[in-house]
Order: sequence, then C-alpha cells, then structure tokens
Amino acid sequence: MAYEREAAILKVTSEVLGAAREFLVCEGFVELLPVILAPVTDPLRHNTDRAIIQAYGERWHLTRSMIFHKQAAVRVCDKIFSFSPNIRLEPPERGQTGRHLFEFVQLDLEVRNATRDDVMDLGERLLLHIMEKVRERCRKELEFLGRKLPSFRAPFPRITYTEARHRYGEDFEERLSAEMETPIWIVDFPIEVREFYDREDPTRPGVLLDMDLLYPQGYGEALSGGEREHRQDRILSRIKFQGLDPEAYASLLSLAGEGIPPSAGFGIGIERLVRFLAGLRHVAETRLFPRVPGVPAVL
Amino acid sequence: MAYEREAAILKVTSEVLGAAREFLVCEGFVELLPVILAPVTDPLRHNTDRAIIQAYGERWHLTRSMIFHKQAAVRVCDKIFSFSPNIRLEPPERGQTGRHLFEFVQLDLEVRNATRDDVMDLGERLLLHIMEKVRERCRKELEFLGRKLPSFRAPFPRITYTEARHRYGEDFEERLSAEMETPIWIVDFPIEVREFYDREDPTRPGVLLDMDLLYPQGYGEALSGGEREHRQDRILSRIKFQGLDPEAYASLLSLAGEGIPPSAGFGIGIERLVRFLAGLRHVAETRLFPRVPGVPAVL
Repeated sequence: MAYEREAAILKVTSEVLGAAREFLVCEGFVELLPVILAPVTDPLRHNTDRAIIQAYGERWHLTRSMIFHKQAAVRVCDKIFSFSPNIRLEPPERGQTGRHLFEFVQLDLEVRNATRDDVMDLGERLLLHIMEKVRERCRKELEFLGRKLPSFRAPFPRITYTEARHRYGEDFEERLSAEMETPIWIVDFPIEVREFYDREDPTRPGVLLDMDLLYPQGYGEALSGGEREHRQDRILSRIKFQGLDPEAYASLLSLAGEGIPPSAGFGIGIERLVRFLAGLRHVAETRLFPRVPGVPAVL
Repeated sequence: MAYEREAAILKVTSEVLGAAREFLVCEGFVELLPVILAPVTDPLRHNTDRAIIQAYGERWHLTRSMIFHKQAAVRVCDKIFSFSPNIRLEPPERGQTGRHLFEFVQLDLEVRNATRDDVMDLGERLLLHIMEKVRERCRKELEFLGRKLPSFRAPFPRITYTEARHRYGEDFEERLSAEMETPIWIVDFPIEVREFYDREDPTRPGVLLDMDLLYPQGYGEALSGGEREHRQDRILSRIKFQGLDPEAYASLLSLAGEGIPPSAGFGIGIERLVRFLAGLRHVAETRLFPRVPGVPAVL
C-alpha cells in the first residue's frame, strides 16, 4: 500500500490527540479553542523572528504560545487546555536538529491554584496514559514502524538545572536525554535563562518554580512549564529583568491589575511526542505538510 | 459566581469538540493536525483581505480553509478531519452580523471516494450526535443560558439554490433560516457563485454537486461542502472560469497531475455551532478572546 508509513504515523498522532483529550476531560479540564492572532504573545528566550500581520489598523502576532491567554482563562475555568498551533520562525539551521518545525501544535494546559508538583504529577499521568492508549490502539502501526516503545513508572527522577549543568556541562539536555532509560525532570531553572512568566521561588531568590521534562533515548525535550507570576508588581519587575519593554505587555499588566489567579501549567509538543512514540528521526515525519525552518513547502 | 456565563459557554464548546471527535473516530476518521501557514490556500468567493507573512524567503498565507490539504490527505487516509483555525480578514462591517469572526475554528473533514449524499448523511448524523451529547452533558449550562434546544429528525429537507432564490429572493439564506423549524440543505449551487474546487455535475453543466446546511431560528449557515474537482484538467478550467491565475495554484495542479482521489467533504464552523446550541446573539460570545472584524482586542 502506498503511504503506509505516513498512514501509520497519522494514526498514532490521531490517537495521541484522542487519548490526551479523554484523559484531561476525565480530570475535569475544559478544552479551549486555540488563539492564532493576538496583540501580545510569548516573548520566548531564544531567538525567533517575529511573525506579524497588519489588520484593521492593528498589529497581530502569530501565537508563539498561549501562556497569557491561559493565565487569563483560569479566571473563568479552573482547568483548561488547548491544542494550540504555534508559529516560531526559528533560524534555518534548526531545520536539521530533528526537533524543530516553525509551525507545530502544543498541548497547552493550565490549572488555577496549582503548584509545580501538582502539574508534574499530572504530566506524568498524562504521558503514561497516552503511551498506554497508543500501545493498545496502535499495535499494528508501532510494529510496522519497528518501534518498541519502552515502559516507564512514575514518579520520574528529578535533577536541578544547576546539578545537571555541573554534572553534564553545557549540553546537559542532549547528554541527559541520550543516557537516560526513563524520562527525567529538570527543575529550578535560574531566573536569567527563562521567561518572565515562570514564577520565582519566594524562599529562594533567583530560582524559578518551573520544570522541563526530557524524553529518554535521545529524543530531547518533552514538555516545559511551571508556576506563574500572577501579581502585577512581580510581572512588571520580571519583564524589566528580562530586558523587555513593559509597554508591549500593558494589556497583560492591566489584566494582572484586575487580578489573575495563581496557576501552574505546561505545554507539550505534539509532533515531538509522536516522534518519540513512533521512533522517528525528524518531527517533519509527523506531518503531511511539515514546516521545516529554511525548507520550502509544496502545499 | 463571576464568569458563570463564560464558563457555561466554554463547557458547551468543549463538549462539542469532544462529541464531534468521538463520533468521527467511531466512523473511522483520523484526526490531522491543522495547517496555519501555507504557500497556497482557499481563494474563497467573497472579499477577504489577504493575510500573508514572509519567512525563509517565501510568502506564507494564513489558512482560510484546509480544502487543498484535505484533498491531498485523502491520498493517505480515506477519512480525515481537523479542527482547523481559519483566518479570514472580513470587512469591518461584518463585525455586526453576529456570524463573523476573522479568526475562527472550522471542523473540516473529507472522505475519499464519497458522494455528496454520503457526506450529507454523515453531516446530519454528526450534528444530531453533537446535539444529543450537549443536551446530555450540558443540561445545567443550557438551563443557565436559558436555551431550549429544539429536536430534529434526519433526513433534513433539501431545496435547490435556484428554487430557494426563486421562492425567497436575494436574501433567501436569512429568510429560510428564519422561517424553518428544522435545519435545511441548500443544494446544486450554480458554478458562478462557488469556488473552483466544488465539483461540477457531469450530467448537468453549470450545476455543482455541493451543499450548504442552514440552522433554523435565524442562526444562518451551519456547514458548507460538496464533492471535489480532482482531475487536473477540470481543476485548471475551473480556476480559469473563476478568473484566478493558474500560476498561483501550480502546486495543487501538479499534485492533481500525480493523482488526487475523488472525495467529498464539508466544513462546519465551531463558533457558529456553539452560538446555535447555546442560543447566543453573537459568535464573539463563544470566545474568551474574540477576533471581531474591526474591533480591537485586549489580549
């Protein structure tokens, strides 16, 4: 059959979306429609060009993440998620990492009044649920793809950013992901390496209450999240600390003035998850119409 | 409780997404990730400004619909769907119709080798399934919103475009939707009022094998679809007939040269569906961050 490989990967992707949705709905989450155009979006830390259009006399950013919309949404519902298409115009050389698309979908979720530990526990159960359902519903496809999916047990091990840097050096992410037999959490990122919305630990200045999860077998980053800065004064000082213009975040700051609840959450990239589950070389294989930095598209 | 109305509407929206997905997966559909940026997108018939960004030395359209990607995808899987965010920069005056957002989500599906009758039957069962689940799972919310959801039976009545124009005049859509007690299909649009990808009936030149579904109670258009032109020569002549530049559709035409299977499908707007189910005045009420033509957004 032609396209048998593509069909198998699409089936795995579809089951991932279904398994994630069924798990989160059982956990009391409400699914939000994604946001594509917004007056303000995630600044990110690393270099990505800005994707902006003009409409109705205003500038609209293509969403890089729904972080601010999630923080606003938990005023209305205490548990929300969205399958959020993100546009990040990464440098062309990132087209070769196997982990970067300039258009990808992130399962982005947020929980009102949650702690980092709450969402780390949720993330472990979510990942294990998806893996169980994919094993169950995509046996044929995984076999066709030659993928022997490993089994894990929660809780996953944790290591602090500082310890990871100390033990594994600059490229600790690659080395940890390559050496581990199980997913591993990296916690407590220093304030200077992350975005302003990750919450600083009141008891440990300069240390953030955030985390990344790495896949084993060299598949790299799985998810990223943390507790959020929600107080107007804290957000303002963190925006300044990151060297950004508070004017650009005026709407977020005025929203925080009206009151944003404390929350924690994370985003997990669907294409990277499917790449790991299906054992693929490049995330581009997960899409029929991949958007690879620097590579032209046909359709 | 603050935001009780917003929370009720979000709950209905979330159940619509879940009910639609569970129905389609049971029917053997595979969920595709949406496409946001593409070298080519739906030309549409009506005036909408072009939303384009530049990246990696190419021009990327923000997706107005996934029609061409759906036609390409049914080469791989015979039944596909996607919750597809569409950007359509409608004229500002459309902000007042109650039915237009310039960013909305369309449940877009396509079936290989299907006829118009096949997908009309599917559309009726999909809509009735969603209504049944929303009634069941959102009783409290519908009551809070004061919405008494009517009950329908399939098959829904059908009327041809020509007969509808003859009986109800220019604004037949508004009048039919306002007068009906049940959804009604409008079929057989004339070739000059629709896009080039709707298939012309080989036995009735100038008549298309397409359809729209209207909601009753004045809620207007529910879905739009039909059989597709899939032969390269037919697509080319229809592109010319619509007065478009074949060069702009070169990639679609070369794809059709390699072979696109016959298919039929439709798209159903999620915000319009929620507006109907929840009995809302304006689709903007279905979104926490609505994108209303001509209206600035806070976040």
